[in-house]
Amino acid sequence: MSAPSATGGPESIDALIELLARIPGLGPRSARRAALHLLKRRESLMVPLTRALGEAAQNVKACSICRNIDTRDPCRICTDPKRDASQICVIENVGDLWAMDRVVGFKGTYHVLGGALSALDGVGPEDLSIAALVERASAPAVEEVILATNATVDGQTTAHYIAERLAGAQVKVSALAHGVPLGGELDYLDEGTLFAALKARKPF
Amino acid sequence: MSAPSATGGPESIDALIELLARIPGLGPRSARRAALHLLKRRESLMVPLTRALGEAAQNVKACSICRNIDTRDPCRICTDPKRDASQICVIENVGDLWAMDRVVGFKGTYHVLGGALSALDGVGPEDLSIAALVERASAPAVEEVILATNATVDGQTTAHYIAERLAGAQVKVSALAHGVPLGGELDYLDEGTLFAALKARKPF
Repeated sequence: MSAPSATGGPESIDALIELLARIPGLGPRSARRAALHLLKRRESLMVPLTRALGEAAQNVKACSICRNIDTRDPCRICTDPKRDASQICVIENVGDLWAMDRVVGFKGTYHVLGGALSALDGVGPEDLSIAALVERASAPAVEEVILATNATVDGQTTAHYIAERLAGAQVKVSALAHGVPLGGELDYLDEGTLFAALKARKPF
Repeated sequence: MSAPSATGGPESIDALIELLARIPGLGPRSARRAALHLLKRRESLMVPLTRALGEAAQNVKACSICRNIDTRDPCRICTDPKRDASQICVIENVGDLWAMDRVVGFKGTYHVLGGALSALDGVGPEDLSIAALVERASAPAVEEVILATNATVDGQTTAHYIAERLAGAQVKVSALAHGVPLGGELDYLDEGTLFAALKARKPF
C-alpha cells in the first residue's frame, strides 16, 4: 500500500481501521477510535459483531416480490396473512420501508424501488424495480398503490413516472401529503413546503 | 428481547444493528444506515470487514513491555533497533500513542498507562501500568521519561503521581509544554491555557 499507515502499527489493525472508515458515519479518526473500542471489548462486542456480520452477509437476501431484505424469500411482510395485500406502498429504499413500518405502523405491503430516477446519476427506469411494480399492481387483488418516494426532485420525478406507468392499470394511485411538518415553524420552512401546505389547505 | 425491533424485520439484521450501534460514533439511526450500506456492499466491504474483525480479534494483543497493541509481543516499536530506547514517552491510551507516533513522528519508545488516575471513576495506581513503568525506568539504558498524559485534571494528576514515583530513579522526567495551540486565537482560549502560555513565555 502506498497510503501512509493509519497507526504506524500492524497491518491487521490498519486494515480493520481502513474498512471501518468506509462505514457511513465513521471517518478515519472515528474509525481508529472504533477499532480501539472494539479491541478493548473483544468478547462482549467484537466477537459477537464479527459473527453477526458474517451471518447477515450470508443469510440476508432481497425479497423476490418486494425487494425488501430478509433471511426468507418471500420476506415476512409479503407472506404475513395479517397484512393488507390490497395496498402497496412504494418506497425508494429499505431504510424508508423501516421508517414507514416501524414509525408509522403501515399495515399494507411494500415495494422497494432501489433508488430514484436521476438524470444526474444516470439512473433510469430499468435500474429500478418499476416493471415488477407495474406487474404486481395489475393483479386483481391490488386496489391501491401509495407513492411514498422522497419529497426530493428525483423522488417526485420517480413518483410521476410511476403514476404514468400505472395509468392503464385498474388501481388507485395515491401519494403522501405535503405540508407543514408537526412542530414546524413557518418562519423556518422553505417556500416550496409552505406553498404546498397553502394549496392543500383544509377546512378547520 | 423486550426492546422493540429496530426494523420490524429479521432478527439477524436487528442483531447486527444493535451491535453496530454500540460502536462509538454510531447511534441507533446511523447503525441502521450502516447495516444497509454493508448489506449493499457485501463482497467489497462486508465480507472483508468480517474477516478483518475476526483476524484482529484473534491476533492483536497487548505488548508485555509497553502495553501497545500489536500482533507480536513484544511489539514492533519495542523491538525496533532504530528506535531510541533511552526515551520512554508515557501516554494514557493506544490512541495517544498513534497520535504521537503518526503525527509527531516521535522516535523513542512508549509506555501505555491504560488510562489516567481518577478518584471519580475509581481508577487507582494499581489499575494502570505504573509499576511496570517505574521498573522499566530503572534500567540503566533509560535516560528520559516524557510525560504525555492528557492536559486534563486526571491526566495531570497522573503525571504528577508518576513524577513522584520516579523521583528516586536516575532518569530525567519531562512533560509536554502547555501553551497556545498553533492557529489558536487568544479570544477563544480558556484562561488556564492562556495563563500557562504567559507563564511559560520565551524571548522572541
